[in-house]
Amino acid sequence: MHKGISSEMIKQVIAFSKDRDWEQFHNPKDLAISISIEAAELLENFQWTGSSTEGKDSKNMKEELADVMIYCILMGHAMNVDLESIIREKLVQDGEKYPVSKAKGNAKKYTEF
Amino acid sequence: MHKGISSEMIKQVIAFSKDRDWEQFHNPKDLAISISIEAAELLENFQWTGSSTEGKDSKNMKEELADVMIYCILMGHAMNVDLESIIREKLVQDGEKYPVSKAKGNAKKYTEF
Amino acid sequence: MHKGISSEMIKQVIAFSKDRDWEQFHNPKDLAISISIEAAELLENFQWTGSSTEGKDSKNMKEELADVMIYCILMGHAMNVDLESIIREKLVQDGEKYPVSKAKGNAKKYTEF
Amino acid sequence: MHKGISSEMIKQVIAFSKDRDWEQFHNPKDLAISISIEAAELLENFQWTGSSTEGKDSKNMKEELADVMIYCILMGHAMNVDLESIIREKLVQDGEKYPVSKAKGNAKKYTEF
Repeated sequence: MHKGISSEMIKQVIAFSKDRDWEQFHNPKDLAISISIEAAELLENFQWTGSSTEGKDSKNMKEELADVMIYCILMGHAMNVDLESIIREKLVQDGEKYPVSKAKGNAKKYTEF
Repeated sequence: MHKGISSEMIKQVIAFSKDRDWEQFHNPKDLAISISIEAAELLENFQWTGSSTEGKDSKNMKEELADVMIYCILMGHAMNVDLESIIREKLVQDGEKYPVSKAKGNAKKYTEF
Repeated sequence: MHKGISSEMIKQVIAFSKDRDWEQFHNPKDLAISISIEAAELLENFQWTGSSTEGKDSKNMKEELADVMIYCILMGHAMNVDLESIIREKLVQDGEKYPVSKAKGNAKKYTEF
Repeated sequence: MHKGISSEMIKQVIAFSKDRDWEQFHNPKDLAISISIEAAELLENFQWTGSSTEGKDSKNMKEELADVMIYCILMGHAMNVDLESIIREKLVQDGEKYPVSKAKGNAKKYTEF
């Protein structure tokens, strides 16, 4: 059900870029720009609409979500960080900021607790 | 080196949200908004600077990249899609748009080939 | 009621930057990045919430909207374009894409008419 | 040289929307989303490139900058705020955070002075 992303897939994403000699363009600043651009293209599916995915172009949503993830993988590669590690560390940090006892059922920022 | 993201980690991200009763807030529209916001926070590290990560706050960059990935995982969950599958399908599609023979060494959009 | 933005105010925004020797940082690429960052900060006011401004931090919303406009003014200055002219030209173009007869009461993109 | 945006132009932008019965869609949340989307389209002109406008599609840049401004005008209308006033107030506030004596010639955030 909740499948992960295999190291084989990470390698394929990086190889895709390497095969095209694109690593020369993939500096961290332009990758960060690219993540923002793809995030906005994903968001465009929700402009002027309700909050669910109903009645929306699910093919486009999947493609744009994939694009955000692909650039995140390339960003991790360019920064030489292990994606699982930084996610794990962020969850630990978020767990301290948002203990269940305070955060349960509300969407406030921790600075407003 | 190029480690993936385990299904165990995907489960932890989803459990983190479930434990806090946050699934009520995590509709696709607000998750797409959140991906854009975190992408902009990552990008802020590169405002008024050069394109490398040198001299930058690497701790903050890792945290913001992790935040983008965390919301992507939650988005995949809300859309009930398998992340590895949509990345694989996108690479196939990009491979057709950007064959090595045409794309090698240039950063043009496929519409400009 | 619908007051404009005076040329005096445009001059003040540019002078603010010039007085601080910030024009060296204000290249078009970093200004475009800055517009995106401020737009995301404005958007953050609407994360996990309803679509109106009710119950929101109107002070922060005004500040972030002002920030987006300030960077747009600086971008217009960096690109050496007259803001009123480009808005007028865009409205003409949009009027052709979205004639009242087709666009009235629907939020579809012109490519879907 | 540094021309402003006339109240007549503000009225035209609002009338364009009103004529198409689009005010029903133009709630603050979706307008904030739209500002972010247009900001990303402007930013796309600078993906994988240098920081100046040289060699870029100046027609597209003007159109996207105009789109950001148009949605800012509609956002000001939806929030019932006067754009010139909020820009003026923001400059006063920024002037306190960034006095010339401290900010001159550096791009640091005021929290790092």
